Amino acid sequence: MPTYTPPLRDMQFVLHEVFNVADEFKAMPAHAETDADTINAVLEEAGKFAAEVAFPLNIGGDTEGCTLDVKTHAVTTPKGFKEAYAQYVEGGWPALSCDPQFGGQGLPHTVNQCLYEMLNSANQAWTMYPGLSHGAYEALVAHGTDEQKKTYLPKLVSGEWTGTMCLTEPHCGTDLGLLRTKAEPQADGSYKLTGNKIFISAGEHDMAENIVHLVLARLPDAPKGSKGISLFVVPKFKVNADGSLGERNPIFCTGLEHKMGIHGNATAQIALDGATGSLVGEPNKGLAAMFVMMNAARLGVGNQSLGLTEVAFQNALAYAKDRIQMRSLSGVKAKDKDADPIIVHPDVRKMLLTAKAYAEGGRALQIFCTLLLDKAHHHPDEKVRKNSDELVALLTPIVKAFITDNGHISTNACMQVFGGHGFIKEWGMEQFVRDNRINMIYEGTNTVQSLDLLGRKVLGNNGATLKKFGKLIGQLVEEEGVNEKMAEFINPLAYLGDQMTKFTTEIGFKGFQNPDEVGAAAVDYLRVAGHLVFAYMFARMAQVALRQIAAGSTDPFYTAKLQTARFYFAKLFPETATLMRTARSGSKALMDTDAALA
Amino acid sequence: MPTYTPPLRDMQFVLHEVFNVADEFKAMPAHAETDADTINAVLEEAGKFAAEVAFPLNIGGDTEGCTLDVKTHAVTTPKGFKEAYAQYVEGGWPALSCDPQFGGQGLPHTVNQCLYEMLNSANQAWTMYPGLSHGAYEALVAHGTDEQKKTYLPKLVSGEWTGTMCLTEPHCGTDLGLLRTKAEPQADGSYKLTGNKIFISAGEHDMAENIVHLVLARLPDAPKGSKGISLFVVPKFKVNADGSLGERNPIFCTGLEHKMGIHGNATAQIALDGATGSLVGEPNKGLAAMFVMMNAARLGVGNQSLGLTEVAFQNALAYAKDRIQMRSLSGVKAKDKDADPIIVHPDVRKMLLTAKAYAEGGRALQIFCTLLLDKAHHHPDEKVRKNSDELVALLTPIVKAFITDNGHISTNACMQVFGGHGFIKEWGMEQFVRDNRINMIYEGTNTVQSLDLLGRKVLGNNGATLKKFGKLIGQLVEEEGVNEKMAEFINPLAYLGDQMTKFTTEIGFKGFQNPDEVGAAAVDYLRVAGHLVFAYMFARMAQVALRQIAAGSTDPFYTAKLQTARFYFAKLFPETATLMRTARSGSKALMDTDAALA
Repeated sequence: MPTYTPPLRDMQFVLHEVFNVADEFKAMPAHAETDADTINAVLEEAGKFAAEVAFPLNIGGDTEGCTLDVKTHAVTTPKGFKEAYAQYVEGGWPALSCDPQFGGQGLPHTVNQCLYEMLNSANQAWTMYPGLSHGAYEALVAHGTDEQKKTYLPKLVSGEWTGTMCLTEPHCGTDLGLLRTKAEPQADGSYKLTGNKIFISAGEHDMAENIVHLVLARLPDAPKGSKGISLFVVPKFKVNADGSLGERNPIFCTGLEHKMGIHGNATAQIALDGATGSLVGEPNKGLAAMFVMMNAARLGVGNQSLGLTEVAFQNALAYAKDRIQMRSLSGVKAKDKDADPIIVHPDVRKMLLTAKAYAEGGRALQIFCTLLLDKAHHHPDEKVRKNSDELVALLTPIVKAFITDNGHISTNACMQVFGGHGFIKEWGMEQFVRDNRINMIYEGTNTVQSLDLLGRKVLGNNGATLKKFGKLIGQLVEEEGVNEKMAEFINPLAYLGDQMTKFTTEIGFKGFQNPDEVGAAAVDYLRVAGHLVFAYMFARMAQVALRQIAAGSTDPFYTAKLQTARFYFAKLFPETATLMRTARSGSKALMDTDAALA
Repeated sequence: MPTYTPPLRDMQFVLHEVFNVADEFKAMPAHAETDADTINAVLEEAGKFAAEVAFPLNIGGDTEGCTLDVKTHAVTTPKGFKEAYAQYVEGGWPALSCDPQFGGQGLPHTVNQCLYEMLNSANQAWTMYPGLSHGAYEALVAHGTDEQKKTYLPKLVSGEWTGTMCLTEPHCGTDLGLLRTKAEPQADGSYKLTGNKIFISAGEHDMAENIVHLVLARLPDAPKGSKGISLFVVPKFKVNADGSLGERNPIFCTGLEHKMGIHGNATAQIALDGATGSLVGEPNKGLAAMFVMMNAARLGVGNQSLGLTEVAFQNALAYAKDRIQMRSLSGVKAKDKDADPIIVHPDVRKMLLTAKAYAEGGRALQIFCTLLLDKAHHHPDEKVRKNSDELVALLTPIVKAFITDNGHISTNACMQVFGGHGFIKEWGMEQFVRDNRINMIYEGTNTVQSLDLLGRKVLGNNGATLKKFGKLIGQLVEEEGVNEKMAEFINPLAYLGDQMTKFTTEIGFKGFQNPDEVGAAAVDYLRVAGHLVFAYMFARMAQVALRQIAAGSTDPFYTAKLQTARFYFAKLFPETATLMRTARSGSKALMDTDAALA
């Protein structure tokens, strides 16, 4: 059975020592009271919930899955899920980063980020129930009417009700412009929705008394395509004027998917049979409104893979120290044993360090990103808000695609450390691989993320936002350029930073002549950009570690951090050499293949 | 539901047009009668069995799995498995490449290779039952006594009995030197075996009347470690002198593993409780005897991933042509539809072509390798036999690790083409990923393969065998060096071939000073070697295609082959740039990490 220990020390390092979040929060009136002690205390409690309540349900949830009673449309979640959720609500966790005016605790996103990393390590399938609610909360905060806010937000914030995003239909996922669900306006200002949705995560369950579905649908006179989509809120149970629950709304779960992973989460087929809803935001502007939720969800999906990478690493490390098998190539290490622990083998270390580096790089990026989100929402200086918002927009597809792909690499590597035992369910390693696999797909496949990054976020503004990130790199290079001890981290970062401009311009130029060149390069480009960002994170972390050591610290944490950073630059970062080469090889080898793909 | 069409055209291309196998067989007395028509007729029938009998049982086998009756130790295989096996036996398929003196049909390994590729595409879990038998057959042919051969071989050849390899124990897999199962000599010359084995594929089932277990165990006076291991044959039912089945031998299935994939195959925990066996080969030389079986199995594991890569590709291609979603970046392609089929998108094509190239490269290598195996066994010229044997030994770890890693990349890419539907069981794509995952682990993990390649097969003889492969490349380069049309294939091959010598020498030199340098470079080295071999295969295939086109052929097959080869060199082969860089970065970044891995 796997184990999990919340990585509080590394979180605190990133939060306090690398990004000095408490100082940043001091500048934001909404968060000025959030000091380091508060954050640490919250995270310690959050870690206990994750490790002691959510984690023990992870394997059982996978084995048992969810079940649907087709007659009543009721879904039963795995044993213990409901009770754990009740405890989560009891603890006030759903409210952590929500607005106090709706009952929230008003803590920064950055703190919520760390809570969720730990929940995802513990139990991704379970965590998606509160996770989706949080997305619904954000969409309604941004686009709901006062009445909708009053009706739904306090209940979502308290966790009494949960939320969903109902986007996908059988014939359309990526291309929401094709969707067919209809919304007919009623005399009372409400709408009746009819249609079929699929892949609705947390779409039906027994954990909360009501479910707040956010549904994309078409008004009768809507233009074709994505400009004719509107967003509606459709509760499972209608809500009376006094806030009490009314009659059951005909929005039913008609089936549950049998999936590769996240078995504990109900992936529902949903039929709307004249269900009553109300419009969120403006008619035909539903996609934009939904994107509030989607962008938050994309950061959240990266966080799911970060969580799985961390927990997979912890278990593989423990196994590699415990399992004895063969002798070290460089001579016997454990003389008192019949063989050496497998951690002596270079490639076992490589697999472990791959996961460790991707976890630590991912954690730094996620925290960097949510801190920007907090600044975008709450910084008093408009310029900082705008700048932060742009950087988050740039980094979101990188967080989503790079961290989930890294999660795939890492969970597979950690499973591999276990040899044959990795393939056996009881060890828990193969579940991490299966659960992670969806993260590369949902909330926009990683290919879609790459097009969003290269096409929209980079070329879409002629690289202006990318240059802003480049400035951060430039500052660090200037700061540390003369520091010999930093050279091993700064040099590759600076080199790739320089290359990146030329590389981007090249693709942009080719894409101008033939847009398929953008599509052909995008996935490789995103991975190069991901390494640029991770290289920056590792350089920042190494900088802190070196300063601590120079100041006399003997805490092995700092040595460990430098070792991980060195590993990253020696073994993972060089992938950029191939990626730039394959990206540059262009679209011809892909598009001139009609015979091969006949 | 997925579909499968046997890739007969591509097999025939490789067999007849690239490697002219029928001409090669003419030179071998044992196979002189095996002409192209015979091969094609056999493969057509084999394809029918695979597609029509084994394939329809694949998803059901995954869903149902195997069940153990703990009281009787009986295992029930999924619905239809038993009947399909009866049909397989009825068709004489187990005998295909077996020696006529034991009832075999005496066809070349090369033909059996193609049969098994198709069976693996159709149903890896089912195919492991006959597959393991074939391994047991080979070990007994090579090392069995006359009596053992007489007792077991005709029944294994006919398929009436099946076989297993009982190696792994709970505390040892890779390191068989640690194994504890004991064999006590009896007065009648037999042995009583006692111990516990795990991970025994096809270890118990209801498909055949007897199971022939090949078991590694220790004699009482055996030296410690791997030099004290002996091989025994232990039948499930003892065999009377007249060949009829006698009493049940106490070798029992005590548990079945719950696994990530290959659910249809019974992965048994086996308890030997004084089971009667007889010694195979010499005392304490069991590991060498087992390696006959193991080497065959390693080629077989590569073949499993080849099969899965092919079937995953076929289904992803069909889906990409059918599923409409978004418009092409370079302008509307399907004007009559609401969106374009997703095959218009460059990255979808990249995912498809990745699988196609890895399938075609893998098929060429597997056939190349089994043809060498046939030569090693049956060529009249001893020098050819020896040379072929050496090349097979060099290529075996590449086949096992490179093709299974490529299978991981390919099945995941093909699953990704399906978007969210790829994660759903009914589409069948995620099963290909899960089934493939074990191939990277069993019969020696891919790390073990890389150490076998670099440490033993390459550096172990100072690169002598590698140079033999290099000569084949040299011949091709000389032949085609002046052919402008071949330049795009020959140049990168020749370049990497040249690099490889220097690269190998460098690692060898560093490894001489510090053996961990070999361990640190081995996995990267194997992938570089894999690309060298694939580049050679694609250059050979392109050569044939270009000649056919030059001779006036308008068969789109040849154009398709050139397109696939071009894709391979543009998008997959350049990975070698990074791999050589990370290999050269050495062991320091891995081994100086005690703090990071504390």
